[in-house]
Amino acid sequence: MASVVVVGSVAYDSVETPFGKVEDALGGAATYFSVAAGFFCDVQLVGCVGEDFRDEDLALLKSRQIDLAGLEKMKGKTFRWAGEYGYDLNERRTLDTQLNVFADFNPTLPQAYRSSDYVFLANIDPALQLRVLSQVDTPQLVACDTMNYWIEDHFETLLETLKHVDVLLINDGEARQLTQESNLIKAANKIHQWGPSTLVVKRGEYGALMFQRDHRNQASIFAAPAFPLEDVFDPTGAGDSFAGGFMGYLTGTNRSDPDAFRQAIIFGSVMASFNVEKFSLERLKTLTFTEIELRYREFKRLTHFDDFAHWRDEVTT
Amino acid sequence: MASVVVVGSVAYDSVETPFGKVEDALGGAATYFSVAAGFFCDVQLVGCVGEDFRDEDLALLKSRQIDLAGLEKMKGKTFRWAGEYGYDLNERRTLDTQLNVFADFNPTLPQAYRSSDYVFLANIDPALQLRVLSQVDTPQLVACDTMNYWIEDHFETLLETLKHVDVLLINDGEARQLTQESNLIKAANKIHQWGPSTLVVKRGEYGALMFQRDHRNQASIFAAPAFPLEDVFDPTGAGDSFAGGFMGYLTGTNRSDPDAFRQAIIFGSVMASFNVEKFSLERLKTLTFTEIELRYREFKRLTHFDDFAHWRDEVTT
Repeated sequence: MASVVVVGSVAYDSVETPFGKVEDALGGAATYFSVAAGFFCDVQLVGCVGEDFRDEDLALLKSRQIDLAGLEKMKGKTFRWAGEYGYDLNERRTLDTQLNVFADFNPTLPQAYRSSDYVFLANIDPALQLRVLSQVDTPQLVACDTMNYWIEDHFETLLETLKHVDVLLINDGEARQLTQESNLIKAANKIHQWGPSTLVVKRGEYGALMFQRDHRNQASIFAAPAFPLEDVFDPTGAGDSFAGGFMGYLTGTNRSDPDAFRQAIIFGSVMASFNVEKFSLERLKTLTFTEIELRYREFKRLTHFDDFAHWRDEVTT
Repeated sequence: MASVVVVGSVAYDSVETPFGKVEDALGGAATYFSVAAGFFCDVQLVGCVGEDFRDEDLALLKSRQIDLAGLEKMKGKTFRWAGEYGYDLNERRTLDTQLNVFADFNPTLPQAYRSSDYVFLANIDPALQLRVLSQVDTPQLVACDTMNYWIEDHFETLLETLKHVDVLLINDGEARQLTQESNLIKAANKIHQWGPSTLVVKRGEYGALMFQRDHRNQASIFAAPAFPLEDVFDPTGAGDSFAGGFMGYLTGTNRSDPDAFRQAIIFGSVMASFNVEKFSLERLKTLTFTEIELRYREFKRLTHFDDFAHWRDEVTT
């Protein structure tokens, strides 16, 4: 089966929401991505952890079709992030970030990873993203995430990375900041010129928008809602679970045509919707593929509407 | 052809956006609703204007399948509203409101209006909404809008009105304020208990959500995106154009089944998307039904994704 290489953080998160709190829970972009993608395809993880990384967490990743040959165990402590959310779960406040072993991370890809066709560069230093990408022989589809910090302080390196990226997945605030355009269509046009032929804009509870240019430079847009949930407990990792479902589906089906991209957006939305139902990876741990399929079909019901053939005959204007 | 009764403001608006400004331009909830609904069905307008109401504006309404028997010309000036929008066009700031003739408005429905099956109560005093509704013999489908002012200061009267309402169309902030629930599913559950079996939540650039309970009390949700536009000039009247497309389609087809409601949401979204392309009613004035049909089909392309039969066989989890 095809596999996807992911590079990003493996972390211990301390998170507080209006609905509860967890301390030093398993997290990190590469973790959420890998567990989500693992439902669809093989995953080759590139990252690092400290000496304090728990055996049970290692065991969880191993049980999930995730190759850990690229996960380095380094001297020191695992990357830590602490944050909190208010009742408006769209707004996150970072309380503390400790890079720890991540500060000295200089990834070298295991030989088996280098022939992969699919690559996801999670939100890390764009210089590291480039270094990882340069070690993959002939990637067919490269997706990438980033954040405000890299946009502000490493803009030129980020642009250099984007030249080699097919799919940029960011949130709407980041898209606006990156392009200095408040309108997302204009933002997408700019980003297309920088390299990525696909821009996926994640909008939290409002769903996702995908902007694409085909090989004839024809533009198209796909809009997907978020799955309406009565209880959202913890948005941490929603974007990375989304990316995991998205890239996992494309990798698992070995497709990159426009129809598959749209299905991938829905699978991404499905994975994100499950992820936020509990803290940390608690919900993804117990998730089954049957549940994923059922929720995909619920997305179909959520968005379906009929065409209106013959309606025009019934009115006079 | 079936017709819809609408009661609401006919106004002169002064609006400033980052893209320009207009003064004393034709506006008002009932105006936007009527012109939008007029593409789909006959409209019976209930409202009032002052002695300063321009002949050209009267002529526009007359040319649009809009019955003006219920539009009273009263001594004094036409209702006036002034407001401005920043670059985030979701946020509106009211600069001035002059009720003028609207302060003494006490509508009596013309005889021909009383047999209508479809009624839209635009955003006005819920006591007025009730008074109008009581003059319609046997309405089949009643829809209603409201706003923060009535929710805060006329809550009990509003609840009384809602008992007789089938469809409540409000924005997300209003839904949260009305129910004191931050989660929209919980908000919808409360509103269903108050009367309306359908709640349509308008979310501006994020589209609309429709929450329904059927006669067996089964819940369903429909999510529609807003149409992505490269240039939005003036959001004024978007909600009322939406309501006009929504109710116009249901009235014109004489349907109220769940599939028709979903189509109606799309026609509402189509009308709102055109309306914001220019100031005041400038865009709706030149709009054709062919353009409406084309944009409906674009909504289909915007939201369509394939099912994924046989995909499950290709993976192992």
